[in-house]
Amino acid sequence: MPQRDYLRDPAAIYRQSFATVRREAVLEHLPQAAHALAIRMIHSCGMVDLAGDIRVSDHAVEAGVGALQEGKPVLVDCEMLARGIIPSRLPAANAVICTLNESTVPQLAQDLSTTRSAAAVDLWAEHLDGGVVAIGNAPTALFRLLELLEKGAPHPAVILGFPVGFVGAAESKEELIENPFGIPYVTVRGRRGGSAIAAAAVNALAGGEAP
Amino acid sequence: MPQRDYLRDPAAIYRQSFATVRREAVLEHLPQAAHALAIRMIHSCGMVDLAGDIRVSDHAVEAGVGALQEGKPVLVDCEMLARGIIPSRLPAANAVICTLNESTVPQLAQDLSTTRSAAAVDLWAEHLDGGVVAIGNAPTALFRLLELLEKGAPHPAVILGFPVGFVGAAESKEELIENPFGIPYVTVRGRRGGSAIAAAAVNALAGGEAP
Repeated sequence: MPQRDYLRDPAAIYRQSFATVRREAVLEHLPQAAHALAIRMIHSCGMVDLAGDIRVSDHAVEAGVGALQEGKPVLVDCEMLARGIIPSRLPAANAVICTLNESTVPQLAQDLSTTRSAAAVDLWAEHLDGGVVAIGNAPTALFRLLELLEKGAPHPAVILGFPVGFVGAAESKEELIENPFGIPYVTVRGRRGGSAIAAAAVNALAGGEAP
Repeated sequence: MPQRDYLRDPAAIYRQSFATVRREAVLEHLPQAAHALAIRMIHSCGMVDLAGDIRVSDHAVEAGVGALQEGKPVLVDCEMLARGIIPSRLPAANAVICTLNESTVPQLAQDLSTTRSAAAVDLWAEHLDGGVVAIGNAPTALFRLLELLEKGAPHPAVILGFPVGFVGAAESKEELIENPFGIPYVTVRGRRGGSAIAAAAVNALAGGEAP
């Protein structure tokens, strides 16, 4: 059988992928500074129509880039997201912190009558100030973060909020968009989201070659 | 500010999520045995319209369940996917093998003039026979697997093929659907795919409570 005719060169694959996204995605509603970020998010999920649901607040990109360059940690809600962050792109060997599997979380979740994902957010407290929050799975994690902020928790530099699914995902992201704290954010309205999009957002803010 | 009114009980969240997917997703084109699998895949990405792109060959579910129960390994193309597989669901403490970051891969990729993802597939050889292959990222990994099968590589029990993106993803999955090897498969036509969907497919085959 003949050798398959498919693109094998990694650099050419990246170029052609990003060219396709640039050609097809409508990004005009987003700040210019957020275009590269949005392109990476779209690239990660294969959906150019994601663009229409992406919301980026003013200065979110600048805040996220700045926080990472200052060496602030990245707080994530799940292990898949942690694994999607490319360490070599992080500008200051930033810590990537996932508290979901800490030993105290199951009991804390029971005490708070909530999910483990939400309880794990309570363990972020000491790292929140000026940090980068990325949520790629659990709506309850984003809801809990917003509750803690209402109670006076330190403000992160930026919230990358991409919980996914059918219960609370859309609602938690609408609350993020309406957030009265003035914290910069990036999100995707509706049910879509996930670890791949969240990791792409972190990797975009981390720097490296623009797409 | 009042306590937010959102669902916090994990079991209730799961129930309501799966009820929504069952209500909204059209699964009639799929084998009955694949409905639970498809529901989990849809749950992982928040998109009920994914259903229309899901293709499941005859006996794919039975082949995957059987292979896992026999203790066969799961071969994956990326670390995010590996992290999304829930070890406690695997029926035989099955190995989850990701060769992407093995030390020989960069040189092999250079020698083969291909991506690291494709080169990593060459290192699956000794584990392929009767195993479960899950691809959640790289089209070149799926293309390479099909090439190796053409060259006489041992047949896996099932191929869960979900490469994502703009270059080769749709094409590699069409080749999987047309595959002349008679190997059972699960896939999603088009550009969509990814680690979350792939992990959900593995977790569904691994067993546990049906959604």
